Amino acid sequence: MERVYNFSAGPAVLPEEVLKEAAEEMMSYERSGMSVMEISHRTPLFQSIIDEAEQDLRDLMHIPDNYKVLFVQGGGHMQFAMVPMNLMKNGKADYLVSGLWSKKAAKEAAMYGDVRIAANGEESGFTCLPDVKDLSFREDADYVYLCLNNTIYGTMWHQLPDTGDIPLVADISSCFLSEPLDVSKFGLLWGGVQKNVGPAGLAIVIIREDLIREDVCPNTPTMMRYKTYADSGSLYNTPPVYSIYICGKVFRWLKQLGGLEEMKEMNERKASLLYDCLDSSRLFTPTAAEKDRSLMNVTFVSGDPDLDARFVREAEEHGLMNLKGHRSVGGMRASIYNAMPVAGVEALVSFIKEFEKNNS
Amino acid sequence: MERVYNFSAGPAVLPEEVLKEAAEEMMSYERSGMSVMEISHRTPLFQSIIDEAEQDLRDLMHIPDNYKVLFVQGGGHMQFAMVPMNLMKNGKADYLVSGLWSKKAAKEAAMYGDVRIAANGEESGFTCLPDVKDLSFREDADYVYLCLNNTIYGTMWHQLPDTGDIPLVADISSCFLSEPLDVSKFGLLWGGVQKNVGPAGLAIVIIREDLIREDVCPNTPTMMRYKTYADSGSLYNTPPVYSIYICGKVFRWLKQLGGLEEMKEMNERKASLLYDCLDSSRLFTPTAAEKDRSLMNVTFVSGDPDLDARFVREAEEHGLMNLKGHRSVGGMRASIYNAMPVAGVEALVSFIKEFEKNNS
Repeated sequence: MERVYNFSAGPAVLPEEVLKEAAEEMMSYERSGMSVMEISHRTPLFQSIIDEAEQDLRDLMHIPDNYKVLFVQGGGHMQFAMVPMNLMKNGKADYLVSGLWSKKAAKEAAMYGDVRIAANGEESGFTCLPDVKDLSFREDADYVYLCLNNTIYGTMWHQLPDTGDIPLVADISSCFLSEPLDVSKFGLLWGGVQKNVGPAGLAIVIIREDLIREDVCPNTPTMMRYKTYADSGSLYNTPPVYSIYICGKVFRWLKQLGGLEEMKEMNERKASLLYDCLDSSRLFTPTAAEKDRSLMNVTFVSGDPDLDARFVREAEEHGLMNLKGHRSVGGMRASIYNAMPVAGVEALVSFIKEFEKNNS
Repeated sequence: MERVYNFSAGPAVLPEEVLKEAAEEMMSYERSGMSVMEISHRTPLFQSIIDEAEQDLRDLMHIPDNYKVLFVQGGGHMQFAMVPMNLMKNGKADYLVSGLWSKKAAKEAAMYGDVRIAANGEESGFTCLPDVKDLSFREDADYVYLCLNNTIYGTMWHQLPDTGDIPLVADISSCFLSEPLDVSKFGLLWGGVQKNVGPAGLAIVIIREDLIREDVCPNTPTMMRYKTYADSGSLYNTPPVYSIYICGKVFRWLKQLGGLEEMKEMNERKASLLYDCLDSSRLFTPTAAEKDRSLMNVTFVSGDPDLDARFVREAEEHGLMNLKGHRSVGGMRASIYNAMPVAGVEALVSFIKEFEKNNS
């Protein structure tokens, strides 16, 4: 069964080792005679799966003891609502809009309180991020929200704004575990797992304990309260057991590879290969401002939509899949998450050079 | 890899054929070179997975054209909130409390409006259901809610109450696809898939189109509105692609076996085997009233908690797993869902007889 190089932005490539193990364990997990899909969440067998997953994540990210790790069903859009429903104490929040997902998050939050857009990159087509020194926030804002890596536009916040005592909340979906991150700088971090961690349908929330509140917004459903998950070890109801199991395998894979310092080095190497190729190309141009470039999502265009479409099509014939940019921006996007091997990026670079030769 | 007979109430046994196929396709689904976990929900490959799953479900249940099928992230507790948030137009609903899950559903609904408990089986320990002829409902109730099969107590509504023009809403999680059901009698049906259909983390909602409303309860998050799913073919955000894929396989397996008429026959055969054994036992007593017995969850006790515990332990030594009753009631529970083979029930019956012989 030949594998391809899958540059999809999400759901996205997973480590081959993880998939192989999952296939081998499908009929019987650890001699239980059951698939993990068939195991009750109230068994010691599953308890050890979720406990190990949490511990490995804590180890990888050096999560401080005063932060809870929550496994929450649903994806990013669910968090767009959960964040304001749980954190808007004064009914005020400041949002940094650096792409479509932070824009959507701000829109959803505005249902629950007074949202101020503290910065908006829409006019520049979200190709660059503001200087953090230029940002200011309302003193009584309940939190400041940003999306750390902008999947669609290929930008990433390499510096964090100084929010003083105001908790900083970040969507880390598309850079989750791609490099070390100082958790203590955040009040809350959340990531949909389907980009860099596991199968779609699960978000992981890392929240400072003092932000887990009882007096949430009116009408907040039980399953939308962080407290429900925090008080029950994410086992208030049946969690998505199989997704948590696969995430746990990915965490172990990352630890075996050497952790996030090592991943950062690998990811920088992969990104450099690709950006260097694009920077020296006479056909293609990277779209993100150089200072804000993402390590995970590399966006580029030829300037000719027909040529872009041909590139995407011919790349697929070479086993380089899903290079089409997001429907809202067009062009190309290569998502080179943790699980994308260096060989995949090398194959893409070769193909870009070949395509350029044939089309100049 | 030896398989066991898994009587877990959920997550629960899945068809071996489905798991084998999933394992074989793990590294590459339909020659794509990708696992389904890695496939973007915006690809034709996934679109055909979700389209086929929906069509097969429609065929199996003969779902009328004026009903939508929605694939919603989260499980039952999410539906406990979504139902009132979306359906409480007048702010009134009548609930039939026949077990823990309908009780929890009623409690959650009371956050959003005036909930009347139209019947409550709590005093009888939920061992029997009221006569539907004795039930009456408020004329201006937005809906009447019941849980069709009560997993914990082993009871099932074999007759439906006459609610006139008031939409009947049912949680069908633990009898989902176990036998034919006249969808047109309901305004809304929902089932968490983790009992009889697929991996935890997904609920399937079957809703009459006129009940999909714009003017939902204040503060209802975008992802808690049925309309969001109905308008987007359940693709507003990234759905749990792998869960939908496995459910689709289960639907196909059911069709190949002959559909729900055939399943009903098989399920009745399995349930008879077990109830007949228990009815003639001098050691064990089935706990559900005979007229209300579930085909899916068979509950029984010896009257001696120590003996029950020993039964559960010794059964496991014979490869008969997860027979312990729910923590709220104790005793034993054998969940004999669609995927439990007749041979599994036969093995359990043999073991019950052997245990009885050794302990009388």
